[in-house]
Amino acid sequence: MEQRITFITLGVKDLQTSIDFYENKFGWKRSPMSTGDIVFFELNGFSLSLYPREELAKDATIDPAGSGFKGITFAYNTRSEEEVNNLVKSLKEKGVTIVKEPQKVFWGGYSSYISDPDGNLWEIAFNPFL
Amino acid sequence: MEQRITFITLGVKDLQTSIDFYENKFGWKRSPMSTGDIVFFELNGFSLSLYPREELAKDATIDPAGSGFKGITFAYNTRSEEEVNNLVKSLKEKGVTIVKEPQKVFWGGYSSYISDPDGNLWEIAFNPFL
Repeated sequence: MEQRITFITLGVKDLQTSIDFYENKFGWKRSPMSTGDIVFFELNGFSLSLYPREELAKDATIDPAGSGFKGITFAYNTRSEEEVNNLVKSLKEKGVTIVKEPQKVFWGGYSSYISDPDGNLWEIAFNPFL
Repeated sequence: MEQRITFITLGVKDLQTSIDFYENKFGWKRSPMSTGDIVFFELNGFSLSLYPREELAKDATIDPAGSGFKGITFAYNTRSEEEVNNLVKSLKEKGVTIVKEPQKVFWGGYSSYISDPDGNLWEIAFNPFL
């Protein structure tokens, strides 16, 4: 297998709520490939899709039930600690749930965690070693 | 926010088991950035990290408990239906759990779902419209 991912799909409780989050809190623009049933955002070399959770489970032929920590996080790296602070402040002002306020972390970086409406965790991080 | 992701981190129950899966079933090569505590795979423009689940939850300052469907899937798109069949057959022969055998899907594509040791779902798909 080549080392690549084509799509990350988030199975969401309410498609409109999630679209609002990614378009109006993150400020992302949906791809023209999007329809009323599935929405795509073109990222750096792959796409993030929003699709109803029940439908996604059905496509995978599994039980849709699930709760708690998903054991998956996404990181958005910034160019400075100040950018972490400014971005998290701006998201907070837009009503986004801040799970962990920006702070120094043991590995030498600086990071914060925020949550989308389905509890998907985004780390907003500055890594001085990258 | 720019439309990008720097890292996807999988919080795994057992790091060695997961390393074995991604290195020996998927055939991926770890990045030299990897250490004994965290392993990275460089993908198409971003990295996939494997990190112990408890440590990942701790970093996010949340409860590590969680079960069932995560509501997140990853898709690996191929260039033909035959490539889906061959890849899934090869993964099955290596002992990988096949969640859904390759089949035609309602949107006009052809896909299969397989699971990693932590229940992370990978869709192996051919999309004739891409």
